[in-house]
Formats: sequence, C-alpha cells, structure tokens
Amino acid sequence: MNIVTHFKQVRAQTVLFCSHLNVEDYSIQVVAFASPPKWHLAHTTWFFEEFILKPFLTNYKEFNDNYSFLFNSYYNTLGSRILQSNRGNMSRPVTSEVLDYRSYVDEHVLKLLAQNSNKELTDLITLGLNHEQQHQELLVTDVKYMFGHNPLFPVYKKDENLLKNHNQSKETFQIKEGVYEIGYKGNDFCYDNELGVHKVFIADFEINNFLVTNGDYIAFMEAGGYSDFNLWLDEGWSWVNKNQVNAPLYWYKIDQEWHYYTLAGLQLVDKNAILGHINFYEANAYAEWKRMRLPTEFEWEVASKNLDLGKRWEWTASAYLPYPNFEKANGAVGEYNGKFMSNKMVLRGASVATSQNHSRNTYRNFFSPLERWQYTGIRLVK
Amino acid sequence: MNIVTHFKQVRAQTVLFCSHLNVEDYSIQVVAFASPPKWHLAHTTWFFEEFILKPFLTNYKEFNDNYSFLFNSYYNTLGSRILQSNRGNMSRPVTSEVLDYRSYVDEHVLKLLAQNSNKELTDLITLGLNHEQQHQELLVTDVKYMFGHNPLFPVYKKDENLLKNHNQSKETFQIKEGVYEIGYKGNDFCYDNELGVHKVFIADFEINNFLVTNGDYIAFMEAGGYSDFNLWLDEGWSWVNKNQVNAPLYWYKIDQEWHYYTLAGLQLVDKNAILGHINFYEANAYAEWKRMRLPTEFEWEVASKNLDLGKRWEWTASAYLPYPNFEKANGAVGEYNGKFMSNKMVLRGASVATSQNHSRNTYRNFFSPLERWQYTGIRLVK
Amino acid sequence: MNIVTHFKQVRAQTVLFCSHLNVEDYSIQVVAFASPPKWHLAHTTWFFEEFILKPFLTNYKEFNDNYSFLFNSYYNTLGSRILQSNRGNMSRPVTSEVLDYRSYVDEHVLKLLAQNSNKELTDLITLGLNHEQQHQELLVTDVKYMFGHNPLFPVYKKDENLLKNHNQSKETFQIKEGVYEIGYKGNDFCYDNELGVHKVFIADFEINNFLVTNGDYIAFMEAGGYSDFNLWLDEGWSWVNKNQVNAPLYWYKIDQEWHYYTLAGLQLVDKNAILGHINFYEANAYAEWKRMRLPTEFEWEVASKNLDLGKRWEWTASAYLPYPNFEKANGAVGEYNGKFMSNKMVLRGASVATSQNHSRNTYRNFFSPLERWQYTGIRLVK
Amino acid sequence: MNIVTHFKQVRAQTVLFCSHLNVEDYSIQVVAFASPPKWHLAHTTWFFEEFILKPFLTNYKEFNDNYSFLFNSYYNTLGSRILQSNRGNMSRPVTSEVLDYRSYVDEHVLKLLAQNSNKELTDLITLGLNHEQQHQELLVTDVKYMFGHNPLFPVYKKDENLLKNHNQSKETFQIKEGVYEIGYKGNDFCYDNELGVHKVFIADFEINNFLVTNGDYIAFMEAGGYSDFNLWLDEGWSWVNKNQVNAPLYWYKIDQEWHYYTLAGLQLVDKNAILGHINFYEANAYAEWKRMRLPTEFEWEVASKNLDLGKRWEWTASAYLPYPNFEKANGAVGEYNGKFMSNKMVLRGASVATSQNHSRNTYRNFFSPLERWQYTGIRLVK
Repeated sequence: MNIVTHFKQVRAQTVLFCSHLNVEDYSIQVVAFASPPKWHLAHTTWFFEEFILKPFLTNYKEFNDNYSFLFNSYYNTLGSRILQSNRGNMSRPVTSEVLDYRSYVDEHVLKLLAQNSNKELTDLITLGLNHEQQHQELLVTDVKYMFGHNPLFPVYKKDENLLKNHNQSKETFQIKEGVYEIGYKGNDFCYDNELGVHKVFIADFEINNFLVTNGDYIAFMEAGGYSDFNLWLDEGWSWVNKNQVNAPLYWYKIDQEWHYYTLAGLQLVDKNAILGHINFYEANAYAEWKRMRLPTEFEWEVASKNLDLGKRWEWTASAYLPYPNFEKANGAVGEYNGKFMSNKMVLRGASVATSQNHSRNTYRNFFSPLERWQYTGIRLVK
Repeated sequence: MNIVTHFKQVRAQTVLFCSHLNVEDYSIQVVAFASPPKWHLAHTTWFFEEFILKPFLTNYKEFNDNYSFLFNSYYNTLGSRILQSNRGNMSRPVTSEVLDYRSYVDEHVLKLLAQNSNKELTDLITLGLNHEQQHQELLVTDVKYMFGHNPLFPVYKKDENLLKNHNQSKETFQIKEGVYEIGYKGNDFCYDNELGVHKVFIADFEINNFLVTNGDYIAFMEAGGYSDFNLWLDEGWSWVNKNQVNAPLYWYKIDQEWHYYTLAGLQLVDKNAILGHINFYEANAYAEWKRMRLPTEFEWEVASKNLDLGKRWEWTASAYLPYPNFEKANGAVGEYNGKFMSNKMVLRGASVATSQNHSRNTYRNFFSPLERWQYTGIRLVK
Repeated sequence: MNIVTHFKQVRAQTVLFCSHLNVEDYSIQVVAFASPPKWHLAHTTWFFEEFILKPFLTNYKEFNDNYSFLFNSYYNTLGSRILQSNRGNMSRPVTSEVLDYRSYVDEHVLKLLAQNSNKELTDLITLGLNHEQQHQELLVTDVKYMFGHNPLFPVYKKDENLLKNHNQSKETFQIKEGVYEIGYKGNDFCYDNELGVHKVFIADFEINNFLVTNGDYIAFMEAGGYSDFNLWLDEGWSWVNKNQVNAPLYWYKIDQEWHYYTLAGLQLVDKNAILGHINFYEANAYAEWKRMRLPTEFEWEVASKNLDLGKRWEWTASAYLPYPNFEKANGAVGEYNGKFMSNKMVLRGASVATSQNHSRNTYRNFFSPLERWQYTGIRLVK
Repeated sequence: MNIVTHFKQVRAQTVLFCSHLNVEDYSIQVVAFASPPKWHLAHTTWFFEEFILKPFLTNYKEFNDNYSFLFNSYYNTLGSRILQSNRGNMSRPVTSEVLDYRSYVDEHVLKLLAQNSNKELTDLITLGLNHEQQHQELLVTDVKYMFGHNPLFPVYKKDENLLKNHNQSKETFQIKEGVYEIGYKGNDFCYDNELGVHKVFIADFEINNFLVTNGDYIAFMEAGGYSDFNLWLDEGWSWVNKNQVNAPLYWYKIDQEWHYYTLAGLQLVDKNAILGHINFYEANAYAEWKRMRLPTEFEWEVASKNLDLGKRWEWTASAYLPYPNFEKANGAVGEYNGKFMSNKMVLRGASVATSQNHSRNTYRNFFSPLERWQYTGIRLVK
C-alpha cells in the first residue's frame, strides 16, 4: 500500500476506535499497566512528532513543548517522562486539544511526505504506523479493562463483530523432526526482534489446529484445577492464592451461572467460544491437567501454516529472549523491543483485537506471565 | 433562611463551583484522599436520596439502583460501597447523567417539602445541606490538588477572588485564667461533635489575632527549619525525611524564587499573604522554632470573639476526641463524626474555600496531622 | 535508696530477667517494634556510657567504638543509628561480649560515683535507671511476643508468679465535679511529661475499682463484638477487617476452647483473670458495647487513690499531648518523651511486668492505639 | 563411593561448615531469601526423616512431631509450613536440640541401610545427599550475607582457602556449528531437570575459557556502566535506579578505595581476582558494554570440556525452562525443580562454595535475574 494511504488509514482507525467513547472515558486509568485512551491518541502522535517531524521537517515547530514530556512512554533516550502509573491523573490537555494535536501532526507528516519520501523516512513512518497499530490493540484492551471494572459494565459497542470467537475445525497435525529456519525473511516491515534468521532443531510433535474453549476450561475449573498445586508453577500458585483466583479475568458467577464481561456488555459464558483472558500460569496449568503442553515459539512458527490463526494471542512455552545475532538499532528506536527481554513469555498469533495486517507468523508478542488483560488463549501440543 | 430557599441555594452553589471545569476534569482522582468532582456531585445527592427520599417520600423510585453502591462514602450502615481509592476509575455514569440525577433528586425533595415540612425532616435536610457545604470545600481543594499536580498547572478561575489572603491587623490578646464553657449552645444547626456543653479550666494565655504569613515561614525555612530534628515531633520528622519535604504543598523553587500553584495558576509567592497548605507537624515545628505554641481548641474557642477569622483552618494542639457526654445518633447519621475520633487533630476557624455560613466558633474540623491539601494555617499563642 | 545500691539492684535485675533464656533467644527480633534481649541489655548500658561516662568520667575509654552506633535507639542528637527493624540481624557482638560490656560500664559508673556524686550526676543516673526499668518491662513483653509466636510455645518461667491477675474487689466510686490539680508534685524522680502541674475541671463521674476480666470480654466476643462496626472507631474497624481479628493477642481457639499463651506456656483462658493484650480500639469498642466509656487520664489520676492498681496498663480516653508549660530538656535527654506526642494514647497504672517502684499515679505511659503486646487492660467509667 | 560412607561424609560436612559459628549465629535471618544456619541443619535432616525414615523404616518414631511443620521448605505435598520469611523468628528449638535431631536421624538412616539397601532407597538417599550439598552452599552464602550486613564485618574463617579465585589462563575457543546433544547421559546421580537428552542446533561461536575479573569490572564501573541505560534490560535499569546500585554486592568504597567483604573479613578488592556477586542484569550490561554476550546454556554445555570451571556460577543467556520430555516425579520429590521454571535464568558451572563432587557439566542451577548473594560470575562469548 502507498505510504500516504497507509498513513491516513491507520491514523483514522485509531480515532475510529474511540467513536464509541464518551468524553469522560478518555482520561481514566484504572490500573498502572493500562493507559487512558487520550494517552494512546497522544502518544502515537508524539512518536511521529519526535522521530519524524523534529528530525526531518525543516523549521518544524512543536504543537506544544510540554507534550514531549507528557507523552513519552518509556524512551530513556528522549529524557524524562511521566510515570506510567500517573497517566490517568491528567484531565488536561483535554481530549479536543489532543485531537487538534493529531491533526496538526498528520498535516505536517503529509506535507513532509509530499516533499520527500526516501526509504529512511518511509521506513520510520512504517515503524510509527506499526507502533500505532500495537496501541490500537492496547486501546481496545485497556478500554475493556476500564469498562470491565466499572460496576455498571458499560457497553463499548453493541454488535461486537470484532469477535471472531469460534474454532473452524478440530484437527491435529504432525510435524517431523529436523532443523528448521526461524525468523522473518521477507522484504516488508517486521520488528527487530524477528530478525536474525537462524536454525533450530525441532523434534517430532503433534499440534492442535484449534484453541481451548470456554467449555474445555470450565471442565478444568470443575475438576478443581485452581486448587491442585501440582498443576501450577510456583509463582503461578502464589498468584492464585494471593488473589484468590478461581476463573479467567472478567468472569463472574451470578446465580450459579458463569457470566463474562465482553465489549458488548455482560453475557452468559458461551461454552463453545474460544477461551480468552488467561495468563501464562493458567495456560500452563491447563496444559498440565490435560497431560499435554504449550508449544515452543519455534514449533508454533514451523506449524503455523496449518493453523487457524488470528483469534487469540497464544501463550508459548518460550521465554522472550534475543535471537542469535539480534541487533538493537541505535538511539531511541533501539529501545523498542530489546530491553524487555527478561521475565516475559512469548505469545504468537494475533487476536480479535489486533489491527488488520498487523501480524505475521514470525511476529513475537510478549507479556509478563502474570498478565491477563490481552485476548490470550491456549493451543496444545504433545 | 427558609428551608426551600436554603436548599435551592446550596444545591446550585455546588454546580456553580463546577462551571470552571471541563468534562475531562470531572472523573479524575489523583490520589486516594481526593475525590473526583463528579463523585462529590453525586455523593451529596445520594445523601438526600438515601436519608430523605427513601424513608420519607411515599412511592419514591430510585433514579438508578446502582447509585446507592456507587456513591456511598463511608456509611457501613448502608451496606457495601466502592473503595475510596477507586472513585477515579469510573468514567461512567457520565457527568450529564449525574447532573440529571441531581435534578431528579432536587425535584423530589422540593415536592416532599411542599407536602411536609416537620422538624425531623427539615433537620435532616439541614444536615444534608451542611454535608454538601463540606463537600463544596473538598471539591475546591480536590480540584486544586488535581490541577496543582498536572504539569500544565491549569487555571481554575482567573480572578480568584475566593482568596481573602491577608491579615487585617497585628495584635495580641490576653485571656485570663478561669473555668469556661465550651460547646455549641445556640438553636441553629451544629454537628453532634460540638454538643455536650461542658466546663474547661483554662490558664492565662496570650494569643495573636493574626496568622503566620508566607514571609514568616520563609524565615523558618531559611533558618534550616526542615533540617533541625529538635523542632519536630518524631512522626513529623520521619515524614519530612521520607518525602524529602522542604516547603509547603504546591511550592516550587524556579530560578531561585519560590512560586506556588494557586487556583489562578502558578505565581510568585506573596510574602505578605497568609501561609497555607502546611500540616500539623509543620505548624508545630514552626511554633517550636518561634518558642511559642499552637492554641488548644478550648483556648481558641474562648478567644475567638477577638480573632480575625475565616482565612485558614487553624491547626490546634488538641487531638480530636469526644466531648464529655458526646452521643452518637442512631443509624447512619451517627457515623458522621464520632467514628473518626482517633489519630486526628482539631482545626478551628474556616478557610477561603469554606462555604458561606458554614462555620461557627464551636465548629470542630479534623484531619490527620499529615494532611496538607486543605487551606490550613498557623496561629500562635504563648 | 542510696544511689549505689539502687544502681546495683536495677542493673542486676535486667540480667536476672534473662536467666530464663537460652543463648539463641538473645538475638532474635520477630517484629520491628520488639527488640532482641541482647539489644535491651546493650542499649540500657549504652545510655550510661553515652550520658554519664563520656561526659563525666575523665579519660574514659569506650568499651567498643562501634557500640555507639549499634545501640543508640532513637536519639538523633547522638548521630546515626541502626534502623529499629534491623536490630535482629545482628548475631554479633555475641551475648557474652554484651555482658562484658555491662560489667565494664557498671564498674566505671561505680568508680565515678565513688569520686563524685553531685546532684546533676545522680539525677542523670536515676534517669538511666528509670530508663532501664522501662526496658525491663519491654524485655519481658518482647520475649513474650517472640515465644508467643513460636509454634512450640516455649515456657519462659514455669511458676509465673509475676502475674497478679485477679481483681481484689468489685466496687464503684463516685467523684465529685470540681477543679483538680494534675501532675507530679513530689521530690522524687519523675519524667518530664508528668511535670507542669496544672488545673483541670472535671465533671461528676463514677469509676470501677476493678478491671474487665477475660470472662467479661468473652461475653463481648460472643455477642458479636468483633463484627458490629457500630462499636468501633473507623481506624479500629479497618484494623479488625484487614487482620481478621477476633480475639485478644495470644488467644487461640483449640478444640472449641479459648487458650492463651502466657509466660508459663499455653493454657486454658482463666475467665476470672483480668483481660490483657487488647489495643485501644478493642478497649473502646468494649466500653461502647457496655454503654460506658474509658476514663480520661485526668479522671484516672484524681480517682487513683481508690483504685486497685498495678495489674494492667489501662487505656485512657486521652491522647498523649504535652501538659501546659511542658518543657523539653536540652540535648538528647530532651528527646525522651516530648517528640512522641502525636497519634498515641495515654495509659495509666502499671502492669504485672512493670519493675518494682517504677510507677506513680502521675505516670504517663503511651502507645499507638494499635498496639497489643504490652499488658494492657480496661477500666470503665460512667 | 559406598552409600554409607557417602552418607556419613556429607552429613558430617554440613556440621563442619558450622564449626566457625557462635551460637548466636545459628538462628538469625537477615533477609527473606537467606535462611538461618540452624534451619539448614534441620531442614536437610527433615528431608531424610520425611522421605526415607517415615516411609521405609518400620515403627520409626519421629524425633519431634512439630518438626515436620517447622522444617518443611516448600513441599506443598507435605502440608502446611512456616513462611520462608519467618524462619529467623525461631530461637527454639535451640541449636543443640537440632544437633540431637541430626544424630537421631543419622543413626536411624544407618540402621535402615544396614537392613536394606535396595536401589529405590539408595537413590532417594543419594537425592537427599545432593539436596544437602545444595544447602551447604546456601549455608555458606547465607552466612556471608548475614556477616556482610553486620556493621562489625565478622570473620567467618581466617584463612579462607575456600576461595580459588583466579583464572588459570586466558584463551578463546572456537566451536563449530552443528546439531549437538544436550542433557545428562551418565549413570550416576543427576537432577530431573538435566534429563530428557535432546538435540539442539548451535551456530559457530567463540568462547573465553576465563571469567571476568574485578579489574575488568572496575573498568566498566569507571566508564559509567551503572549510569548508561542503553546497556541495561528494562527491569535491570529499574533495579539499579530504585536501589541506587553502583557496585557488586559487598563492595564498599572506603577512603577512595574499593573494599569488599569476604568470609575472611573486609579487604581491599583484588583486581586480578574473579568477579563475584553480580546479578544477571549486571552480567548482561557488562557483556553489552564489551559488545559481546553471555553464552546460552547449550553453548556452555557443548564448550564446557575446554573451560576452567568451578569458580563461579556463570549466568547464561538462557531462561530456566523444561527440556523436551521433561517429566516431574510423582509426589513431593517432583516439586524439587520443575515448579520453579518461570522468571529464572540458568547458571552453569559451580562456585568456590559448591560442595565437592556436587556439579557436572549438565548441571542446571537457576536463580532470579535479580539475585546476587551467590558466588556468580561472567563468561563472555561472541
């Protein structure tokens, strides 16, 4: 796609996701890890101002010189920033100012592209658009977290066609042992953490083309899964006990029936739908209980062409570590991925909330094994 | 004042205080002790719904049956409630719904008063209006806290004529020793904690009719007041060190000059203006440094007719304890004051942010000795 | 008593209290507020070294120049010190070294007294001995805390004749209203916080000459005292809920019967014995339930000649605040009492663990309203 | 070695390590992760009582039926246990009782072995002895932590010949790419986490046969290593800032010279000695600074025959995860390793404090990337 079209489309999409919100929804931060919608709108814009306009557009004048401080996320290269847990303290700038900021930056990026579209620039803009697509997914999951913790359980969008929630078929595939190549080999955009194509030896394995459903998981719950320490990793067991966990995130037992909060409101749990919002420890305990296991990210990548994808981010058995020959870019862009490579697990796939065209079978998503607010799911191998 | 007029006036005033806000400002909670404006608007309304309309208005139908849970503050009698620290998580109900809620309740209270205005009812309504006036002051100080912690230091109101900030004169009065009567003796509204008129023996003392100014306090700061442990109570000294405190709340040193955030924005500190936003430990340390002391609440009450009042809530040397013969009302209304009688200090007077007619010389305000976000000040005695 | 005899007797008593301990018991700190026996032995000795020997004994050479840092408790005047919560990290110096330290200091104090016994010196030594007696009580209660939290419930001393645990009689006295004098007027030792004799007006009241028993308190527990929020101050109610408190400290329900840990081991609760180990919130809730109240410290002092004393430290309704004309001594000795005058409640009386001759009817003990590890009790007034 | 000889030798060695301690040292716990010596003595004994004597010795009578609760470490299978952070609260049982417990259990194990030495039994005893050897190393490092945090810096052992602290030579080896076999293939004892021999593809690499020295690391420190965020993983950078870290554990700058606490006391840092007591984040930052990297555990295992080993536990770039076909044993023994497989990094090698014969080139040690109290070091690869 042409870079100008691509830019306009992704930028418009973020605003579109907000069309279901009220003004009050834009500034709230319920928990340190989830950011307010206004912050996502501003931060994705800040990325273009900071990495594109300031270095490339002659005589560019910042929209507001406080914004660099207010909307930096975690780039140490670029100086001090607001603590992540304080993003929800900011009623100002108001949402309309942030939307003005978006327009201002968009206009200048388009002006710049009209003058100049060398590869360095379009590569950086493409990175900025992929960055924005990641924030689109976070925006949706953060709004879900905010609404899912509001006692009124507000509806985000009535007909939640976002949600493609069922398995297409139930088959199991065999993969033969051998040395396979892992990593991104194409010519389109990918993140630095997918590069460093390298060989991995993989033994024979069988993998399901389908994901665990709510009904499957209820069987685990009813079999006492949350109270059998044998199934749990030590840190997972501590988490279960400390938080008295007995169900996935957003699940509530009302009148003896399991309900869950969805973006369309509170609903009865659909047993045939694919399970979501479990953390790595829950995924691993479920696999133990089935006497199966999670795939490694390498097995997953090798098997991916046979799989029904794009419904959940699937927890793998792999820790998030650098590929051989991984190289960080210089400067702030180099802080994008590499520095998070400890105490995280890799997730593969994509979810119902992932932006269109924003995934690949080499894509390495990563989260702490404790997190549940993304659309995460379970695929089993043997 | 006629109860209907009184009701209309106080209810309108709360909304008026919000006229300087943007929609985004209504739902933010920066810190656990400060509530969002929307919550104040709703909670003061909830008080009338819960204590007036439900018990007294036949066939009254609640505006929304979730609100009882959402907007209860601390009344255990009335069942479960939202944790204070989570009040800022609620983008919904939106502000316009809360304003509708106010109108709905107002209309029904007025309808009830048209039918019936016996003393039990008007007393309860008067309590509700006094309750609302307390929240008006909290609303202003909570907004100040939110804006004072926003890096943009937004202006609440340009011409902040709220602030009557200077001493009228500088004199010292003598009071003779004797047995004095303490407590409210009139026939108008007062809180339960002012009742129980009782005798107290007071020795000779001298009291200033003026309050400590910013300039006075800068002298203390420049003399090393914040680094001389001899001046501090033990818990105050821990607080200073743990938080590296070196000035009152909202003070910032910029280019070698002390500035402070006011509701009219960031300004140079006015040395002649009365000091505000210090906690009990700072007040006490300042008094130690002057080789004077804070008045007890009894001394203050006895001396009050000679004092220039209503500019700051003045820290006293008295812990907040029940008067002899203090009696809690039955039920939820009894939770208003009595249960807070530990680890608090009494403040007397009123502040620039106190609602009109909402103070008396027997009024006992109380806060933890650590708090600074109210308009607090220092009066000295010898 | 002659100062030399007094010195020898108090110093010997501290060591005697330790005769029931094993070496392992000397260095353990179970909780930040309770210090290890070894620390008490050393700190009381440090007091004499620091305040007596260093200033008064010519050419005195410190036993070990690290000890000044290791065994300072909270005297800021004397420089840095070990955090209170780290006192239990020190296996070294070993106990025998600390006992050598005691002998060394004792010998030098006696030598000094042989040379010189002016009033300034004997007053300071008397202060040091009173200080040591306070630590004797803490030593016993800290050991009780350590043993009472060891799953083996070790016996400190088989025949715990320490414990005079029953009321002698059950009578109620009347006190007439009037202006009374409060504070210490004698010529013997007292603490600075008892001075500043002053007048207080007291209204008529009735006071029990007996204390609440375990049986009385069980009645409160069985009536649901720990689950009726109406009886509790707000901070007390939070404490009950956060810690799921349902009985006094050291009480355990075993096979449907209440047991408690005593220094003689785990025993069935004696219903006729006087209740101990409750905090101010429990004392206050019990009084509310009985529709009575705790005495103020002034009422207590006025009534004290009629009371059966010395069995429990009795919670009063008075916050710990300075008397009128309270004056801190200069220097480190001035840090003894005054700086703790916030967020504490006064206790009057003495307990079964209080050292002989270490109390008076003007004695003002003080603790946080949350603490329970002292021998605390309840007396009621109306 | 004969099982009886082996048993006697390992059991005696643990007691021997304690011969440098005073009684006071046995019960202290300075920090939650380090256990008191007495606890190590007892817990290793409990292992034999619980897993050997109770199931295998007919009519065996427990030494003390409380010990099962007191000295369980983390085996959920075996019921409730003391919180790890409370192990230092126990002055009782006293050390001599714990030594009696050791003798009692030893005697019964030897009696059992005289009756019966089938493979199941000797395998379990061998596991118990390896378990004890792990605790021997922890005992030494925990004592070091206790003494290294005592302001007196006590000497554990004057002539610390434990410490073989220098590199033998400085060479770099090449390893050729290929598919290698990983995991334990012998017939002697190994842990379950080393089993599951499997193939791994490894690319060409170069590895140092020597470890980073103190002098090397000082160069990193002097080049600003602790203040250049570019070198650090995100969680490491947070740790550095939160704790203001600027040197390895136990290092103190005194009069402009780096000193460190060693088991022989406080000493000048030996620049030629091998660096120790750094965590994974420090190891990784150092490698980044050298533009090299840490080896994966597979590279390490393949290269190990050329390496100078046994001086430090070497941080690898590998997360601690199960090998393919990893199988947990049933019951409590199965809790030994598997459940810790999240948020840990693998260390390979052995250290100066590792018990004799207690390592192999397939041995997988693991710790949180934050820990520094073990003898950890850095080996680089390219």
